[in-house]
Amino acid sequence: MSTTIAPNLVAAVSEARQWDRLMQLAKIGAIPGDGVNRPCLSPEDREARRLFIGWGEAIGLTASIDQLGNLFLRHEGTDLTAAPVLSGSHMDSQPKGGRFDGIYGVIAALEAVQALREAGITTKRPIEVVGWTNEEGGRFAPGCMGSMAYAGFAPPDTWDDIRDNAGIAWADALREHLAAEADITRRPLGVVEGPAPFAYVEAHIEQGPILEQRDTDIGVVTGIQGSRWFSVEIHGRSDHAGTCPVGMRQDAMQDAIRAITALNALMHDPTDVLRFTVARMEVFPNASNSVADLVRFSIDFRHPDNAVLQARGNAIEGVIAASLRHCSYKLFERFHAVPAVFDPLVVDAVQRAAASQGLSHMRIPSGAFHDSQFMIPLCPSGMIFIPCRGGVSHNPAEYASPEHCAAGARVLAQVLAELANT
Amino acid sequence: MSTTIAPNLVAAVSEARQWDRLMQLAKIGAIPGDGVNRPCLSPEDREARRLFIGWGEAIGLTASIDQLGNLFLRHEGTDLTAAPVLSGSHMDSQPKGGRFDGIYGVIAALEAVQALREAGITTKRPIEVVGWTNEEGGRFAPGCMGSMAYAGFAPPDTWDDIRDNAGIAWADALREHLAAEADITRRPLGVVEGPAPFAYVEAHIEQGPILEQRDTDIGVVTGIQGSRWFSVEIHGRSDHAGTCPVGMRQDAMQDAIRAITALNALMHDPTDVLRFTVARMEVFPNASNSVADLVRFSIDFRHPDNAVLQARGNAIEGVIAASLRHCSYKLFERFHAVPAVFDPLVVDAVQRAAASQGLSHMRIPSGAFHDSQFMIPLCPSGMIFIPCRGGVSHNPAEYASPEHCAAGARVLAQVLAELANT
Repeated sequence: MSTTIAPNLVAAVSEARQWDRLMQLAKIGAIPGDGVNRPCLSPEDREARRLFIGWGEAIGLTASIDQLGNLFLRHEGTDLTAAPVLSGSHMDSQPKGGRFDGIYGVIAALEAVQALREAGITTKRPIEVVGWTNEEGGRFAPGCMGSMAYAGFAPPDTWDDIRDNAGIAWADALREHLAAEADITRRPLGVVEGPAPFAYVEAHIEQGPILEQRDTDIGVVTGIQGSRWFSVEIHGRSDHAGTCPVGMRQDAMQDAIRAITALNALMHDPTDVLRFTVARMEVFPNASNSVADLVRFSIDFRHPDNAVLQARGNAIEGVIAASLRHCSYKLFERFHAVPAVFDPLVVDAVQRAAASQGLSHMRIPSGAFHDSQFMIPLCPSGMIFIPCRGGVSHNPAEYASPEHCAAGARVLAQVLAELANT
Repeated sequence: MSTTIAPNLVAAVSEARQWDRLMQLAKIGAIPGDGVNRPCLSPEDREARRLFIGWGEAIGLTASIDQLGNLFLRHEGTDLTAAPVLSGSHMDSQPKGGRFDGIYGVIAALEAVQALREAGITTKRPIEVVGWTNEEGGRFAPGCMGSMAYAGFAPPDTWDDIRDNAGIAWADALREHLAAEADITRRPLGVVEGPAPFAYVEAHIEQGPILEQRDTDIGVVTGIQGSRWFSVEIHGRSDHAGTCPVGMRQDAMQDAIRAITALNALMHDPTDVLRFTVARMEVFPNASNSVADLVRFSIDFRHPDNAVLQARGNAIEGVIAASLRHCSYKLFERFHAVPAVFDPLVVDAVQRAAASQGLSHMRIPSGAFHDSQFMIPLCPSGMIFIPCRGGVSHNPAEYASPEHCAAGARVLAQVLAELANT
């Protein structure tokens, strides 16, 4: 397939407008150090969504939401029966997140569609800008609930009983959220209740250091490493810290430390490709002079090679069991995504667009998982990465330059124009 | 000094009445498994105090509180200028506490005073039954704030900025509490604003396994092991769990585990006399896919030998510093109490009373610390231990039999009678 540059389309992408929108959104849930804390289904989330919908409606897009709260802004195509091209990302953030993770892909898709319209380019297929619900999993784990439900990967009520740190159930938070957006048109839930999209493209900051280190504008994303998330409970017995001899205790904290230390050995990787993270821990009763009777901790394990993902992931339970001295354990696998490979239809289109616009680019796998993972079984899918400073993400210091943000939107605009006219 | 048995006094101690009061109080803040969660300065705490005051006023005692919320019920002596004998303990509980820790000593003192009055025994000195504020330190650490302030060990505003897990400051909780008890007579704060008591006696469950194992009714407590409490902060950097290579991280969780593992080695004691406990941990941002940038954990370290307490306690900072790979740390010493020795005036009185009543008894040091520790500099002080099942405490399963509770109150009654007529 040949691609020609569409100079009026590329020119219609406004670096200033896109940056201004990103900075306006960054004010909603702003935290010190330029960060953002905008949990899914929160009042801040709803405020950001209203602002975003307003921008879309102002240029003639129509908003709708599904029963998971996934938000769509539709640009109509000339063929009213054609399957849409979908493009977007998520609008929720980590508790101490940045101004670009997720929201950049949503705003870039809006910018690309606005540029198409302003350049007078019609498309055969409709294009839908999407904001997926709860990609981060920061408030309610696991993440990607919206895209998983859309893709039929899990029934929409799968997570109803999951609670946030305040004890609020997912089902209740979602009900409150949908009630607050009752004025927005309700649409069927993805492929569960409707037809599949034609293709999916997601723009995102890399969230890693590689593009910056190689001074490269655009990452042509080839796939996503696999992820397995576990939650571990260590059950012991509470005792008085002053009187119970250490040798008589069933100290859940000490056995949790033994388990994590043993898991560190299991997950040791001299090549530093494997990602093993324990980042969440809850201790009960969490009083300094009462021996802990329950410790819960999370495991986030990722690898691009499915064989490694399966072998070491499956070894976790035996390693925990062998490491405990006095306590019992429970292990729950919360999330399991095998390594994903993107479709050449999209990957090649991204590469062609970057090349035709004279942008430096490289093929790169994604270290983070993304909603795009769940679109792979539905339609040709792919991603566009832009560099972020120091590879820092999930951190208030997260930063991508206005220039790189604009370059990503320009590539996305060209890819959407091409796919929507295929 | 010779002691005669006071049979009418001993007979006036009612096992049934005391047990009924303990069980009534156990309903306030009851949690599953026969436990109690009655944090200091909580509505449950206030409800328990009102019930207790009602029992005292019904037999002619007069209630008063000081600026820390320490609660007193006064039995008047014949010498209106004499310093009082003080007896009591605390009414707050651990978050998952039992029905006897603390509250037993308060109810036993009330029972002893009631028995004295019912037996028609007058005392030269007044006797004051005391409930100290926040002995446990479960909601606001450290514990023993009430007795420390009473004893002038620390200024009464020392802990104003300390916050509970809900973010409520001690000063605000105390203000609310005092407002709710504004109808109760306010008294001067201990030796800071008034004279010293003549003596202090505290009855308590052992909270350890020794009396039960030796089938002994009464522990004649000789002293309290020393305690040092620390709080440790490990400061790292948050990164995306999927994209940041493990080797590039400053993972506060991993360095916290290294620190605790190194402290375990420092605190290893083959004789199992040393008590080292890490029972409280807070992780930030505490999201499973964001590397932790801050971990706070507690250290509770106790030993009966002051040389060991000082040497190992002072080594903590160096061990933490040497254990960290990527993060920085802050260490705060929250509480430091050297091993305490009780006064023969009280210790011998307890032993004589137990012996004269035909109760089996033994001299024993306390593994837990108690408010009595802070009375030692003020006046002759001591404690009476009764056995508890399995040595279990700070646990809903905590249990002391009605018979043992009554035996402790009978010994206490005789000791109070003796001291108040000295």
